[in-house]
Amino acid sequence: MAVYTDVSFEELEVFLAAYALGEPHVFKGIAEGVSNSNYYLQTVKGTFILTLYEMRVDAADLPFYLELMEHLARAGIPCPTPVHARNGDISGLLNGRPAAILTFLDGVSLRSPRTEHCRLAGRVLAELHDAGTSFRGRRANALGPLGWRKLASDCAEDADSVTEGLGALIEDELASLEKAWPVQLPEGVIHADLFPDNVLFVNDDISGIIDFYFACNDALAYDLAVMLNAWCFENDGAFNVTKGRALIAGYQAKRALQPNEIAALPLLCRGAALRFLLTRLYDWINHNPTALVRPKDPREFVRRLRFHRNVKSPEAYGL
Amino acid sequence: MAVYTDVSFEELEVFLAAYALGEPHVFKGIAEGVSNSNYYLQTVKGTFILTLYEMRVDAADLPFYLELMEHLARAGIPCPTPVHARNGDISGLLNGRPAAILTFLDGVSLRSPRTEHCRLAGRVLAELHDAGTSFRGRRANALGPLGWRKLASDCAEDADSVTEGLGALIEDELASLEKAWPVQLPEGVIHADLFPDNVLFVNDDISGIIDFYFACNDALAYDLAVMLNAWCFENDGAFNVTKGRALIAGYQAKRALQPNEIAALPLLCRGAALRFLLTRLYDWINHNPTALVRPKDPREFVRRLRFHRNVKSPEAYGL
Repeated sequence: MAVYTDVSFEELEVFLAAYALGEPHVFKGIAEGVSNSNYYLQTVKGTFILTLYEMRVDAADLPFYLELMEHLARAGIPCPTPVHARNGDISGLLNGRPAAILTFLDGVSLRSPRTEHCRLAGRVLAELHDAGTSFRGRRANALGPLGWRKLASDCAEDADSVTEGLGALIEDELASLEKAWPVQLPEGVIHADLFPDNVLFVNDDISGIIDFYFACNDALAYDLAVMLNAWCFENDGAFNVTKGRALIAGYQAKRALQPNEIAALPLLCRGAALRFLLTRLYDWINHNPTALVRPKDPREFVRRLRFHRNVKSPEAYGL
Repeated sequence: MAVYTDVSFEELEVFLAAYALGEPHVFKGIAEGVSNSNYYLQTVKGTFILTLYEMRVDAADLPFYLELMEHLARAGIPCPTPVHARNGDISGLLNGRPAAILTFLDGVSLRSPRTEHCRLAGRVLAELHDAGTSFRGRRANALGPLGWRKLASDCAEDADSVTEGLGALIEDELASLEKAWPVQLPEGVIHADLFPDNVLFVNDDISGIIDFYFACNDALAYDLAVMLNAWCFENDGAFNVTKGRALIAGYQAKRALQPNEIAALPLLCRGAALRFLLTRLYDWINHNPTALVRPKDPREFVRRLRFHRNVKSPEAYGL
């Protein structure tokens, strides 16, 4: 949680001159996100987030993310929408970084969502998938099986220093998934990172979906598998099938899963667990101790992966 | 700029139960301050800052700071005012830290205040001094001459590794100031850290004075000396006498300096420069590279101190 790039009020004023937002009244760096610098901005025109995209976000992908948010917001998904500059641009350059101003959404993210929150989150995922069908931008999933292979080989040498046997587990899992990874599932725009951090609630209703910087085109059911990993495990490591059932039921209330998606769910859950295991492992191993962000523990996803490897059928998730 | 202590929404809810502020709608860690963890909090009742006091703030001093802010706010100084819990308390305990909720003030701090901003800032300092006369709390200045001696001896071994000759400069300056430090100046409550970071502006008017966690009882003119150091030097290291003149004139528009205060100004400026030099030097030497805060460069205040040592009379500051 950090602000990587410092922006002074004077620098902000120069940047804002391109927009019709009026004078800034509040401007504060916020400790949110791990890859970008975010500022809370309030002007007479409303409240906004100013984001400076740091090296983890490829500037070439920025139009995809920003146009997607604009598209989804127009379709009624409560997500930030980019503010256009007077000349129509949806991003600019600030202190050497690509930067955009997005509408600010009220709401708080939950550390420990309850069953009803899981149901609402599943439902909004299906709504997002539905709204995404008419979006024309395309972006491949950089963190699909090919990306995992690359991360795994970058981490191979150090994996066992994190947990004994981890290198062999990753190698074995990767080999299995590469052989059996489901194809021909319904595809579309997926969020690909819809953890509880990225869903805002006001009075137990969803008020916002944020952080679209992993969004891409991929199997829709993979997005649900990410959420089963992110929303339905308890602190003690156990899978909570009641939450899984609510999440899936919430999703299906808006979009029915096809038989091949249901059948693929255990493998998709293994893939999603491996994806977060690998990115966390990479960050853990390559963490610069002087950096402003503390890396997340990858071992949490080792346990989740082991759970999914023991799953015999989709019923285990509450289907 | 960091959040040291993580607070989940669920932990916030428990803490807020003691207050009559309603449901939280926005709760975000903000990258502000170097010694505390700060959260921006919005409820149906308004916008607030939730502060968790980390080890640098002595919990025993908290009532002084909080009651002072309440006193000053009532007297019309635009400063945060603590929100009382239902039982009357102005602070509580959250995740093992003393914590308080204060009203949020709109406004932005300036990186490069102009002459007119200096005049307004000088004026609000005099208003603060005036409003403080009726405050009954007392707190000694822990960063006065006795505190400097302690810091200097803690840094003595490493000072020359930062700038050659720095150890001798500090020793010489400290010896001079200990001998000549002005006494019998008008005293009262001082802010003691009124840097541009701690003054908020909206449309070129002052909207807030923040960060009272160095406030104490000391010579009023010392507060002005702190501001001459903090507001009137340019990026190239030169003292801007036009800004100095505006700052002092702004102050005197509300409270006339006495002859002994004017005469003491050069020494007070040396003392203020030494105070920030020493605390920055200490943080620079003892910086933990894994910490979330980047220390400020002490050498800036070496140059300022050298300027003040060459000052022959108070006229140099624009008097």
